[in-house]
Amino acid sequence: MEAVTGKVQYRVIYADTDQMGVVYYGNYGKLYEIGRTEMIRGMGFPYKELEKSGVMMPVYSVESKYLNVITYDELITIETIVRELPTAKIKFQNRIFNEDGTLAHEATVVLVFMDTHTKKLVRAPEGLLKLFK
Amino acid sequence: MEAVTGKVQYRVIYADTDQMGVVYYGNYGKLYEIGRTEMIRGMGFPYKELEKSGVMMPVYSVESKYLNVITYDELITIETIVRELPTAKIKFQNRIFNEDGTLAHEATVVLVFMDTHTKKLVRAPEGLLKLFK
Amino acid sequence: MEAVTGKVQYRVIYADTDQMGVVYYGNYGKLYEIGRTEMIRGMGFPYKELEKSGVMMPVYSVESKYLNVITYDELITIETIVRELPTAKIKFQNRIFNEDGTLAHEATVVLVFMDTHTKKLVRAPEGLLKLFK
Amino acid sequence: MEAVTGKVQYRVIYADTDQMGVVYYGNYGKLYEIGRTEMIRGMGFPYKELEKSGVMMPVYSVESKYLNVITYDELITIETIVRELPTAKIKFQNRIFNEDGTLAHEATVVLVFMDTHTKKLVRAPEGLLKLFK
Repeated sequence: MEAVTGKVQYRVIYADTDQMGVVYYGNYGKLYEIGRTEMIRGMGFPYKELEKSGVMMPVYSVESKYLNVITYDELITIETIVRELPTAKIKFQNRIFNEDGTLAHEATVVLVFMDTHTKKLVRAPEGLLKLFK
Repeated sequence: MEAVTGKVQYRVIYADTDQMGVVYYGNYGKLYEIGRTEMIRGMGFPYKELEKSGVMMPVYSVESKYLNVITYDELITIETIVRELPTAKIKFQNRIFNEDGTLAHEATVVLVFMDTHTKKLVRAPEGLLKLFK
Repeated sequence: MEAVTGKVQYRVIYADTDQMGVVYYGNYGKLYEIGRTEMIRGMGFPYKELEKSGVMMPVYSVESKYLNVITYDELITIETIVRELPTAKIKFQNRIFNEDGTLAHEATVVLVFMDTHTKKLVRAPEGLLKLFK
Repeated sequence: MEAVTGKVQYRVIYADTDQMGVVYYGNYGKLYEIGRTEMIRGMGFPYKELEKSGVMMPVYSVESKYLNVITYDELITIETIVRELPTAKIKFQNRIFNEDGTLAHEATVVLVFMDTHTKKLVRAPEGLLKLFK
């Protein structure tokens, strides 16, 4: 497959910041979520539809690097890339850019596919898979 | 009934603050939740048990007054009072005190009792009611 | 003055929800913040500029009514109205609508104007005031 | 140096959960923060004192593995270990245990020491260093 990329903008609010005056390190998980959700929506397969089909996607691992601070009211860009065909898991790579274009953050988030009822791992749903092929 | 009071302490973390250097106004809902949950637990009826019995308690209204700032690392005290016998709703009054004893915040939170399955309002479960009588 | 109204849309994410499957009651403060920030930005006076001029706006009181649940992935509309000329305080009224147009939530949030350095209350900055006249 | 270990308990609240009925993956950053803050406090050097001395500790990287879900109202245990002497950075290893003792989560969080005013990286303050020697 070719890499699939999505981009979405997000405006930093007070709630995201901490008393260092920057986005709190523990709030980046929301940014990754917004990134991958909007990427999948853009491909025509909203995550909500996935859930209705009886599959959920818990996060298995996260690796994050904080390269530059992000400050209040910045209109940041969250980039999300999938480079490998999903199997029983799917790997999202995120890059977050400051309003001035500086690369502020990198992350890799791996999620697994799980049957909502049995809680067993399953393969990626065909409807999602074919979007990446 | 006589008023029932609970007290619990909470240590403010970075995650709670914003770039004004104080606890973000939108994070107080968590503090009320901690207050009423620990009050009910202290009465011997954990909220989790309530849920298992098929009743949930969504919040209906909140009224808050911010009287003094709360800062990072303060060991605050959350006081929770119930003055009236629960009916189809229950009213919790919260007062939050700074580490030095200053009254920092007042709130009134009203929750309703709802059947988990039918989503209809119901009267307070007998097991909870009798704790207040 | 005539009432000034702003509207902004917001997409509910997983981070906003709780295990009742709806937006956690304690997360609505963020929604009010987004509403009033975007309203003021739309009037041409970003909150960040206000801060640079040495004025900050801590929240003094909040009154909230939860009328209908808001669920994951809904594209909600946050409406913000100012009906009275700001003095040393400013009152924002919020109404939040479900994606299908149902009125889900009402709130009144009062903020005060405070000198960033002296921490004393001050009157609304002239630059902001004239936008409402 | 010998490894230094700290343990602290935390009660999961509604605010921590999401609609999957478990602690939201993006809320674990708070748990690491509570772990390392209480570990350092236990060593007699509260983080707040560090800040007063003109040093802050932004997070540089996080690596997380989600091994088991954590659910509402669980009294979890957050373990924090430092195995290497701090230099210009300090590495905290976290393990989070379910109430029944299951290992639910592992993380490694690296923070750097930064001069509050110059924003330049600095070596760990002597007062902190000697606690690890």
